[in-house]
Amino acid sequence: MPSKNMTLFYSPASPFARKVLVLLHETGQLPTVELFDVQLSPVSPSGEVIARNPAGKIPALELANGDTLHDSRVILDYLDHQHSGEPLIPRDGANRWKRLSLASLADAVLDAAILIRYETFLRPEDLHWPTWLNAQQDKIERVLAELETQADTGQLQCFDIASISIACALGYLDFRQPQLDWRNRFPRLASWYAEASQRGSMLDSQPPA
Amino acid sequence: MPSKNMTLFYSPASPFARKVLVLLHETGQLPTVELFDVQLSPVSPSGEVIARNPAGKIPALELANGDTLHDSRVILDYLDHQHSGEPLIPRDGANRWKRLSLASLADAVLDAAILIRYETFLRPEDLHWPTWLNAQQDKIERVLAELETQADTGQLQCFDIASISIACALGYLDFRQPQLDWRNRFPRLASWYAEASQRGSMLDSQPPA
Repeated sequence: MPSKNMTLFYSPASPFARKVLVLLHETGQLPTVELFDVQLSPVSPSGEVIARNPAGKIPALELANGDTLHDSRVILDYLDHQHSGEPLIPRDGANRWKRLSLASLADAVLDAAILIRYETFLRPEDLHWPTWLNAQQDKIERVLAELETQADTGQLQCFDIASISIACALGYLDFRQPQLDWRNRFPRLASWYAEASQRGSMLDSQPPA
Repeated sequence: MPSKNMTLFYSPASPFARKVLVLLHETGQLPTVELFDVQLSPVSPSGEVIARNPAGKIPALELANGDTLHDSRVILDYLDHQHSGEPLIPRDGANRWKRLSLASLADAVLDAAILIRYETFLRPEDLHWPTWLNAQQDKIERVLAELETQADTGQLQCFDIASISIACALGYLDFRQPQLDWRNRFPRLASWYAEASQRGSMLDSQPPA
């Protein structure tokens, strides 16, 4: 049994941390990582995280030598270099940047959905700004429409960095915006996600109920 | 003279776009890119950008084949594979993830400074939330303290992905928070930046006065 020589600072509710958990699972590296669950928000940072990542953000991956890697994209890149299977981030060629751009679209959904969460959950209600909330939601809708096209043209068949990021973004929308009902509007994406969300890596990293 | 076979959608005020401009300059690729200046904000997106990047964000790099790459990290990675000089993003080895983690700290400064800008410039004044503003500013301070240590231990001597990101972050702080006076508190970082900001790549990409 491999020794746990890394520590992942994470939260089960963090979709950026979930991307890392999914890649660890998909590449057989989960047994090498100790999971350290932290509570934090932008207005109540965690001392344990700050000591390792001054930005105060998770996921952060502490290596055996004491160095800490962050943020999620850097950690994903690192972990994808640590296994001997087919890389989940293409190493070179046009496909590398195509898949990374698609992953960045998924991250944009997460950024927007998290800003909506901060606005509606953290910020006092009398300070909410509907224009901001609508603009973030519009961004999510635009990206979902593009992802529908990607699903429709078979671009999500490989469960690589792009598909992992998209699956985690959709999982986060279901978690924080269960009323969104995106499946009716984006049926090909819904059909793809119905299958992707049943992978062991996705089932094992589901956000809390 | 090389033909301009790529188009960079950018704004002179965007620090994420500036990172791309600096890398283009440092690697001799500026002549290959047409610059397309766009006006946008999260609440007033640009149709020209959305048509190429549904997330609506800049920088976005349109390639000769019509594909568009985004966001800044993906573009930087792509462009660093397109020149024959020493890579500005180490391709492998422990240094790769060390430098990328340092670059991600600089991006965290940018994210925080931009959220502060949105809060104080875009959002109606009666909806400002001081707790949020303070938390973002605290994050900037924590990262600056870490960057002071990095400067003090000679980690910024190579003008690579980490140094480019840090220089653009400091340039953005000077642009949007001229009152911050970080130089007195972080003298080694200030001394490093005094020199770095005089590079041709930094002088040529300065934000508007």
